[in-house]
Amino acid sequence: MMNPWSEIIRIALMEDIGRGDVTTNGVVPLGEETEAKIIAKEAMVVCGLPVMVEVFRQVDSRVRMMPVVADGDGVMPGNTIAQLRGPARAILTGERVALNFLQNLSGVASITRQFVEKIAGTDAQIVDTRKTTPGLRGLQKYAVRIGGGSNHREGLDDGVLIKENHIMIAGGVTEAVKRMRQVASHLLRIEVECETLDQVQEAMKAGAHVLLLDNMELETLQKAVDMAKGRCLLEASGNISLENVRQVAETGVDLISVGKITHSSGSKDLSLLFK
Amino acid sequence: MMNPWSEIIRIALMEDIGRGDVTTNGVVPLGEETEAKIIAKEAMVVCGLPVMVEVFRQVDSRVRMMPVVADGDGVMPGNTIAQLRGPARAILTGERVALNFLQNLSGVASITRQFVEKIAGTDAQIVDTRKTTPGLRGLQKYAVRIGGGSNHREGLDDGVLIKENHIMIAGGVTEAVKRMRQVASHLLRIEVECETLDQVQEAMKAGAHVLLLDNMELETLQKAVDMAKGRCLLEASGNISLENVRQVAETGVDLISVGKITHSSGSKDLSLLFK
Amino acid sequence: MMNPWSEIIRIALMEDIGRGDVTTNGVVPLGEETEAKIIAKEAMVVCGLPVMVEVFRQVDSRVRMMPVVADGDGVMPGNTIAQLRGPARAILTGERVALNFLQNLSGVASITRQFVEKIAGTDAQIVDTRKTTPGLRGLQKYAVRIGGGSNHREGLDDGVLIKENHIMIAGGVTEAVKRMRQVASHLLRIEVECETLDQVQEAMKAGAHVLLLDNMELETLQKAVDMAKGRCLLEASGNISLENVRQVAETGVDLISVGKITHSSGSKDLSLLFK
Amino acid sequence: MMNPWSEIIRIALMEDIGRGDVTTNGVVPLGEETEAKIIAKEAMVVCGLPVMVEVFRQVDSRVRMMPVVADGDGVMPGNTIAQLRGPARAILTGERVALNFLQNLSGVASITRQFVEKIAGTDAQIVDTRKTTPGLRGLQKYAVRIGGGSNHREGLDDGVLIKENHIMIAGGVTEAVKRMRQVASHLLRIEVECETLDQVQEAMKAGAHVLLLDNMELETLQKAVDMAKGRCLLEASGNISLENVRQVAETGVDLISVGKITHSSGSKDLSLLFK
Amino acid sequence: MMNPWSEIIRIALMEDIGRGDVTTNGVVPLGEETEAKIIAKEAMVVCGLPVMVEVFRQVDSRVRMMPVVADGDGVMPGNTIAQLRGPARAILTGERVALNFLQNLSGVASITRQFVEKIAGTDAQIVDTRKTTPGLRGLQKYAVRIGGGSNHREGLDDGVLIKENHIMIAGGVTEAVKRMRQVASHLLRIEVECETLDQVQEAMKAGAHVLLLDNMELETLQKAVDMAKGRCLLEASGNISLENVRQVAETGVDLISVGKITHSSGSKDLSLLFK
Amino acid sequence: MMNPWSEIIRIALMEDIGRGDVTTNGVVPLGEETEAKIIAKEAMVVCGLPVMVEVFRQVDSRVRMMPVVADGDGVMPGNTIAQLRGPARAILTGERVALNFLQNLSGVASITRQFVEKIAGTDAQIVDTRKTTPGLRGLQKYAVRIGGGSNHREGLDDGVLIKENHIMIAGGVTEAVKRMRQVASHLLRIEVECETLDQVQEAMKAGAHVLLLDNMELETLQKAVDMAKGRCLLEASGNISLENVRQVAETGVDLISVGKITHSSGSKDLSLLFK
Repeated sequence: MMNPWSEIIRIALMEDIGRGDVTTNGVVPLGEETEAKIIAKEAMVVCGLPVMVEVFRQVDSRVRMMPVVADGDGVMPGNTIAQLRGPARAILTGERVALNFLQNLSGVASITRQFVEKIAGTDAQIVDTRKTTPGLRGLQKYAVRIGGGSNHREGLDDGVLIKENHIMIAGGVTEAVKRMRQVASHLLRIEVECETLDQVQEAMKAGAHVLLLDNMELETLQKAVDMAKGRCLLEASGNISLENVRQVAETGVDLISVGKITHSSGSKDLSLLFK
Repeated sequence: MMNPWSEIIRIALMEDIGRGDVTTNGVVPLGEETEAKIIAKEAMVVCGLPVMVEVFRQVDSRVRMMPVVADGDGVMPGNTIAQLRGPARAILTGERVALNFLQNLSGVASITRQFVEKIAGTDAQIVDTRKTTPGLRGLQKYAVRIGGGSNHREGLDDGVLIKENHIMIAGGVTEAVKRMRQVASHLLRIEVECETLDQVQEAMKAGAHVLLLDNMELETLQKAVDMAKGRCLLEASGNISLENVRQVAETGVDLISVGKITHSSGSKDLSLLFK
Repeated sequence: MMNPWSEIIRIALMEDIGRGDVTTNGVVPLGEETEAKIIAKEAMVVCGLPVMVEVFRQVDSRVRMMPVVADGDGVMPGNTIAQLRGPARAILTGERVALNFLQNLSGVASITRQFVEKIAGTDAQIVDTRKTTPGLRGLQKYAVRIGGGSNHREGLDDGVLIKENHIMIAGGVTEAVKRMRQVASHLLRIEVECETLDQVQEAMKAGAHVLLLDNMELETLQKAVDMAKGRCLLEASGNISLENVRQVAETGVDLISVGKITHSSGSKDLSLLFK
Repeated sequence: MMNPWSEIIRIALMEDIGRGDVTTNGVVPLGEETEAKIIAKEAMVVCGLPVMVEVFRQVDSRVRMMPVVADGDGVMPGNTIAQLRGPARAILTGERVALNFLQNLSGVASITRQFVEKIAGTDAQIVDTRKTTPGLRGLQKYAVRIGGGSNHREGLDDGVLIKENHIMIAGGVTEAVKRMRQVASHLLRIEVECETLDQVQEAMKAGAHVLLLDNMELETLQKAVDMAKGRCLLEASGNISLENVRQVAETGVDLISVGKITHSSGSKDLSLLFK
Repeated sequence: MMNPWSEIIRIALMEDIGRGDVTTNGVVPLGEETEAKIIAKEAMVVCGLPVMVEVFRQVDSRVRMMPVVADGDGVMPGNTIAQLRGPARAILTGERVALNFLQNLSGVASITRQFVEKIAGTDAQIVDTRKTTPGLRGLQKYAVRIGGGSNHREGLDDGVLIKENHIMIAGGVTEAVKRMRQVASHLLRIEVECETLDQVQEAMKAGAHVLLLDNMELETLQKAVDMAKGRCLLEASGNISLENVRQVAETGVDLISVGKITHSSGSKDLSLLFK
Repeated sequence: MMNPWSEIIRIALMEDIGRGDVTTNGVVPLGEETEAKIIAKEAMVVCGLPVMVEVFRQVDSRVRMMPVVADGDGVMPGNTIAQLRGPARAILTGERVALNFLQNLSGVASITRQFVEKIAGTDAQIVDTRKTTPGLRGLQKYAVRIGGGSNHREGLDDGVLIKENHIMIAGGVTEAVKRMRQVASHLLRIEVECETLDQVQEAMKAGAHVLLLDNMELETLQKAVDMAKGRCLLEASGNISLENVRQVAETGVDLISVGKITHSSGSKDLSLLFK
């Protein structure tokens, strides 16, 4: 299958390798074969193994990577994640880029899993946002799915979300929704950002299909849900934390979007060891 | 000047915009002009303003961005960082990508500044590592400089660093350094990773110019410094935190490398408001 | 604004110009300036003027193109469409590629307009399909809009359409829709291709939002509309011609998709004359 | 062999697939294998099978395509053109792009064949023009050969053709040819567009090797042939149709160029069916 | 005009600059403006000034280059070739690549001029070959023209040259020419490589338009010319030197192709001095 | 392993092949297989065999190349360098580009070998410069190594060399070195260009690690060596020829850089013969 990640992997390898790995080429003989393993140094939900495969394939197609766990598996410190066999030069040269992807994506999957577990038993879903790391949009959205979350739109072209600034320019929710309905593809629903209960009313009346309830106090949020539940899909957003996410879910919203699962997930600690 | 960041900016715009911003194109009239400002929503060291300029230049060269502060300035919540004027469509379409860069780089610069301030008055420097976010190597290294840190090598081709796995394959520090000296450019110094005091001794004897003292207990680190100071440049690395960085610096090492200033810096919260 | 067409224009220029226009460079002096105009040689709805501007901009940014009409205007044989002024070499070298775009897109817009006029007064819309000329997807969809039609999804990633082959693999409409509902973004509607009235029933029951009524006899189509109107959006498709499109529209379907407006629109005849 | 078409195929896949085929990925299980066949839905000269092979190779190299006929074969409605076996996801995802190429190229080959058959027994050849679909120049010229026609120059760099506008700028046929002879490669012949018998005389005298007899009445064309036959190669052009092409051929011209075989060939109807 | 050289210039800058000019960025302040001049350090025919303009434009569009001489002018040691004004960083960073192009192309133009002058007064022309430096084909062919030579075909696609190995595979000159005539575009002449007088006879009889008389002794060459002059264009090739080129020309051949004017021209010595 | 040369090879093939090899495609049947060999036509140090392998791989992966010698081997006129087997079309189409690389790189390796042999027994090394052919930097530096030389920095980003113009702008050697020390990576040494003995003194005092002794008379050079030997690495540069290189080496310098081994090496004569 066409690998949608090959371009960012190529860029990451280029920025690290440049004209060549002078240390490895100076110290490691050309024909040297080796075995290595990738070890978790802290607990995590693993994510990014297919990316690592592609990283090493680009460096040298003779490197064989044998995953010991699968994306989505939880591991503990010291667990082996994958084994590698092949040219020692290629493994050393590709190591850092491979780990850089794995540590970022495992971070995203791990924190997503934490949010998902906090709301277990409710009807709400954790969804991501467009607050992703530049260049890693597709990969981080994949990591969100691996962590048990769902994806919001991929970009500006595959979903309609009328936000505060759009409403301001259009002169109001009603007008903004009206304009959008005239041109939107019949395959797209229209979502509207609402900051007040009045806007919730107005958006429903204008024909919005999904409401983004932004930064509302819990009490207000509950009123919005009571007002709109069943008529629109409801998405809560803004200042969602592991502490408050369950309360938000229990209001009855359908979706809870969390920016920090992609933009501030932190890295997980991993290491590549030669045998 | 050739913009070394234009490629990753182009990629970030492509992954967000795809075939076009359907909401903005549906709601905002083509000729609409607007003014907006970018506001800090938490305290931070700002970093990434030239990147934002390039983001908007690529979206629509008619957007004018007027920075109110400069990269490296500290701001408080509510402070205006920049003002924008131009086509409303372009500002809305470029907003998220611009903020995604700014929030990441300001995160890097801010945490770097914290580390730098912790060791103020010592002779040590905070340096980065190759544990950067894929695709953002150059930008994050720039943010480290803005935060007051120094840069380690950019990649595998502009510096020699003989690591544990290289030493294992070569069969020892002495042999690894010997091989490297035979081929290294006369413009490059040779750095060797040492995990024990024996390795420190061996590396110095083999002719290493820089020693990476990796994951040493403070006491061991001090001994290593006492042994090698003045003969080699000394870099401490591994598990450096804001809590222990000053103690590390006070051992007398020249450089302290910290992976988390790039891979786990977190994002800073920013917002774009229409006037 | 980023020009989404610049890549295909660059490719079209490269395939025509290659290493250079040997005739023009041999016959026309370097500094020669000239004026020219583009003339319609048959009646048409003009489409593609911004593309021509970009073609000449890429050949030589000193060429000035002054449109006399606008995209969407109808012209008669002999009417001037645009005037050009600038380096004679650039105008001659870019002429054919510019006309090749204009003749194709005006063909698409013209035939779309014919379909749209045929159904004037009904509630139906003419929409395009993915049966476009490779490389020209975005441009031809633009031409459809210029001709008065609406756009179906741009590609496989911004809309859900469960077709006959998907249904066969899933083992039925109900199962296919069920699978899709589990993973589809909350911003996308689900469209299902139906070839029989039983499938129409099943799709509605399964929760489809849009039905593609494919290749149905007029009588069957009318029954499908009577069954589903108001509960789902209804799209008629298959063997739509200028002869039968009005009858199809009068059944009450919301959308009528026509492949031939993009894949077999034919070219409109145009000419570039020097003054 | 380097595939000269891989770039336009890549572009066509990108514009259709974008970030991924959401329907197929939602409905079809990852490991599902399938068989399918491509069926002609009308009579045609098939063209584009190697292109389809490359389309599916780019989507997923595990798809096997087994042609049942060869490019250039005539088929009837219902005939199988090729069989496919492989991952169901890949076949569904690549289907539309593959068919879009095949329907366009079979259209070109089919109409070319019609023109070629009309002039069977004469000494004339059907040749194409530069009035091709942007991005498809090389492919459509291949389809012309498959249909039995010959190719005019590929672009502006591999043949000299002095046209009306060049002559106007040079100040006449004689001067234009003279300038061209001074710089033209010794491997290129010089062709001159002539609209009158006087120009035919002048071009021959100036040393043109090929004459493009443009838009001449049949009678005038015959006179031009009588005048120049044997001294120059003669190409007829302008308003050539299936109705008049034989008469044109019988004047004794060597080449007849027809724009509509590439720019207005129409598409042939094809379908991909799962078994 | 589209700059056909911008790609190789971009590549040359990338391979030299990589991640940035560390020396210049370290030593030269950001805003520093300067003036510089490019000086010939030996006699030469200058070639490459438009390339230098493009080099500096890509580095920093604020650099102004004011040529003092023009491509094709002869200069003496110490002569100023161009003056530069602009950001000191950009001039220092672009200097080496700019000079690398200029020294190569001036080398080609200078040696071509020498060959051309040697045959002054004869009817022969000096032409180049495909033995060019990889990546510099178009630029070196331009330098040949600047030096007073003519260009042979640009590549394998804009001229027909049947060489020894083609003839061997076809089974003889006659068969090779016959095959070629069946498929060659009517705008291309057919050239045949001949190593013996028998092949000259056979090629003429087969209908070749140009003969490449390869590596013939002067006496044989004269016989070939006597045999074929006026019926075919005649090109002499193989071991042509400044010593023997005039004798070759005086045999009456039309073209003399010389590989060494591109592959072994040597560099001309140039220097960039700050004022 | 990622092939760092594949890009320039692709460019070289594109500029030669363009839209296709019309002669070969016209004369040589599609399925024809052949054998060929590459023969040295003069004595040389062979360099570039892996490049040829990649050239033919890009043209047609079915071509098998079996080297008879290895890069770095010396050969005599008539010696076979490699044997080829595969599709005749591919071998003929790739021949010229493959030879163009081989002749250039063998030229570089051969002249480098001559310089290296001249200084055999001294402690000096021959190193290259940045005066390489645009696009061939990496390949020519490889050829220098094959010829027995060492490489100076690859580009402006992996080494510090403060040259005359930098010194002028900084206002002196001391200031330039001071600025550089403040920002240079701890992994890079600082080299300073010195034209006088005073500059040698000043550079040493400022803390330079390597001195480039530029264009000094032998006597001055000797004094510089006497002054600085053991404290700095010493590189001689400027007007080095096969005649004077040994005298330069005997002064005791560590490195001798020679521009002409890359910019004016000339080509070696090679031929591809069919069996």
